[in-house]
Amino acid sequence: MKPIVLMTDYGLEDGYAGILKGVILGISPEAPVIDLTHELPPQNVLAGVLTLERSAAFFPPGTVFVCVIDPGVGTERRSIAARLGDQFFVGPDNGLITLWLEQCEREDQEVEIVALDQPRYWLSGLSNSFHGRDIYAPVGAHLAAGVPLTELGSPIVDPIFIDIPMPMPINRGWVGHILHIDHFGNLATSIERKHLVAFAENIDNGIPQARVRYGEYVIHGIQSTFGDSSPGSLSAIIDSAGRLSIVVVNGSAQKYLQAEIGDAVRVIRDL
Amino acid sequence: MKPIVLMTDYGLEDGYAGILKGVILGISPEAPVIDLTHELPPQNVLAGVLTLERSAAFFPPGTVFVCVIDPGVGTERRSIAARLGDQFFVGPDNGLITLWLEQCEREDQEVEIVALDQPRYWLSGLSNSFHGRDIYAPVGAHLAAGVPLTELGSPIVDPIFIDIPMPMPINRGWVGHILHIDHFGNLATSIERKHLVAFAENIDNGIPQARVRYGEYVIHGIQSTFGDSSPGSLSAIIDSAGRLSIVVVNGSAQKYLQAEIGDAVRVIRDL
Amino acid sequence: MKPIVLMTDYGLEDGYAGILKGVILGISPEAPVIDLTHELPPQNVLAGVLTLERSAAFFPPGTVFVCVIDPGVGTERRSIAARLGDQFFVGPDNGLITLWLEQCEREDQEVEIVALDQPRYWLSGLSNSFHGRDIYAPVGAHLAAGVPLTELGSPIVDPIFIDIPMPMPINRGWVGHILHIDHFGNLATSIERKHLVAFAENIDNGIPQARVRYGEYVIHGIQSTFGDSSPGSLSAIIDSAGRLSIVVVNGSAQKYLQAEIGDAVRVIRDL
Repeated sequence: MKPIVLMTDYGLEDGYAGILKGVILGISPEAPVIDLTHELPPQNVLAGVLTLERSAAFFPPGTVFVCVIDPGVGTERRSIAARLGDQFFVGPDNGLITLWLEQCEREDQEVEIVALDQPRYWLSGLSNSFHGRDIYAPVGAHLAAGVPLTELGSPIVDPIFIDIPMPMPINRGWVGHILHIDHFGNLATSIERKHLVAFAENIDNGIPQARVRYGEYVIHGIQSTFGDSSPGSLSAIIDSAGRLSIVVVNGSAQKYLQAEIGDAVRVIRDL
Repeated sequence: MKPIVLMTDYGLEDGYAGILKGVILGISPEAPVIDLTHELPPQNVLAGVLTLERSAAFFPPGTVFVCVIDPGVGTERRSIAARLGDQFFVGPDNGLITLWLEQCEREDQEVEIVALDQPRYWLSGLSNSFHGRDIYAPVGAHLAAGVPLTELGSPIVDPIFIDIPMPMPINRGWVGHILHIDHFGNLATSIERKHLVAFAENIDNGIPQARVRYGEYVIHGIQSTFGDSSPGSLSAIIDSAGRLSIVVVNGSAQKYLQAEIGDAVRVIRDL
Repeated sequence: MKPIVLMTDYGLEDGYAGILKGVILGISPEAPVIDLTHELPPQNVLAGVLTLERSAAFFPPGTVFVCVIDPGVGTERRSIAARLGDQFFVGPDNGLITLWLEQCEREDQEVEIVALDQPRYWLSGLSNSFHGRDIYAPVGAHLAAGVPLTELGSPIVDPIFIDIPMPMPINRGWVGHILHIDHFGNLATSIERKHLVAFAENIDNGIPQARVRYGEYVIHGIQSTFGDSSPGSLSAIIDSAGRLSIVVVNGSAQKYLQAEIGDAVRVIRDL
């Protein structure tokens, strides 16, 4: 029995996520069900993409990700199920798997996508506003219970991609943006380790060295860990997902800098 | 082994909901335990009633709902367990099952209610302020493990009901109220599909047509889905629980209208 | 298969707690995993200590508590696993088990602590900022799956303790502090039942009697339950964890008093 992971923007107060689990329990009672998060910013597909990027590799082969961030619910947008390497995705066709698909391509992993068109695997009495309950949870549960992907829909080759902000090369460095602010106020940027490796001349303890600029703040050097700086100080690290992040040790860089998603961050090669 | 669903107003920060699961695990280790929600507004029994109304039907037969919204903890209020059709309820006798009981009556389903009076199924060392831990979780776990309802207490026939706001008929329509504001800011009202069916003269795509008024705002027509209106626009839909709801497509009607629970909403027949 | 309980300050929005479960699922797929809380105040070790104090006894023997409140991540602080009586702890060595250790000592229960130094039980590709994912979750999962404690690290006898605020005796009573404010706004203090028993001359219904003072507010008598006072009134009770607590029946003492953690509370013997 495959595990099922739930990722939504439903919040926890209304019971919507619980309802998905009730539906799954009725179809696939033995499948372990895990909440990845239900607190994504409403209708924010990019936040979902980044959460999957951080998380998917830490779940076992066979895991079925049921993902519902669905600004297009009730429109003509397609619903899909996909095999991405050795894991599965079920959700709206709105770009949630953008980075995952690119990774499969890079790593030459097999991908198979179907557009859901088999209502016999859905709840009867389909609503127009709660497809998580009526389509994605039941389809995910059937997939976990062993129904083959190809039974659930018809093959497609043109899934939707969304634009993922990438850093731009500048004179002696990169300019990127804050993509994600986490619970601790850490600021993850669009600048990845690979961008730094490509241009930094000093590699210190495995970390390419550079100056990091945010507004008028300048951080000299990129640390390998929180512990290399004193509590309360502003630092730059490569975070556990491989992204350049601005942090305050045992504090919140978001509060310290009053930072917001989309703010520019520059890395500049040290001379 | 029956599944156990938890619904409380405990919040998630203090570990209270986790403690319920520890107690259950000690009694009925194989029972799946599902969080419906722990974020109900404190002591708000009506919010619990509405959450159960939206949710219970999506859980399998045999599910045991352990529900703790308990403004009367420590008073003389009774504690009950009930069989309601093919599911079970455990919690304080304060009206949480009001709508569920009415539905069983309408659908001619069997109902059996006992007042809990068998401390051998409770935790020893009963506290006076945490009956979820000391009474409801253990009783729910014993029920899930197969203890018959009648072992847990003595039959009663006079459970507490609470008043559920209903819409009032007015000249050419209904006046109702906002009952629930969800995570997305959708405003669910006391006006149900059945009220509209009873008076609307135009049925458009399965949806009875009417004008919807909230303060000075007038919405012309009731859509079948979010997708029928453009993003950012104020619309009225029949939501996935069958209630007339005011929504903003990909936005928050609550923020748009500065709406609050209890605000009046009118539907008026189109001429 | 032992159950695993998770307690962190990760919050729920980023998927970090979900990632821990993915790691556990890959190692110990049959172990039940329970969220105690992920909403501890960031880096607040004392809040973790108090949550464990309230909770651990309600989980079955054998339970493995994976606890990550880790202001020292990336520094030289040790990581530990421990057997504490008939349960287990995995987490940073920063005092999280302070009260639990003291309780084991009082009750003459066996304690065994190891410093984690066996990377073969960790995730490969260790990060410097997410030891919950890379060390504690996998170690907890291996422990749940049956790996002996002594395989996971080398014995230590000098775990870190933190200071737990204790009440001070004053003329005819005690002065203590607010230690914890829960979801309902109840104010739990450092004054425990045992402190009251030691000095109160009247025991009323099992409750030692005293006046309770917070700022200019005086509460006469300690109730045995919420139900002994009328809704909206300020009361003092012994809470379900045995601590003197200031509460407002069906309301929030925190809001009523604008109280904060650390505020002084006095109990004074009635004459």
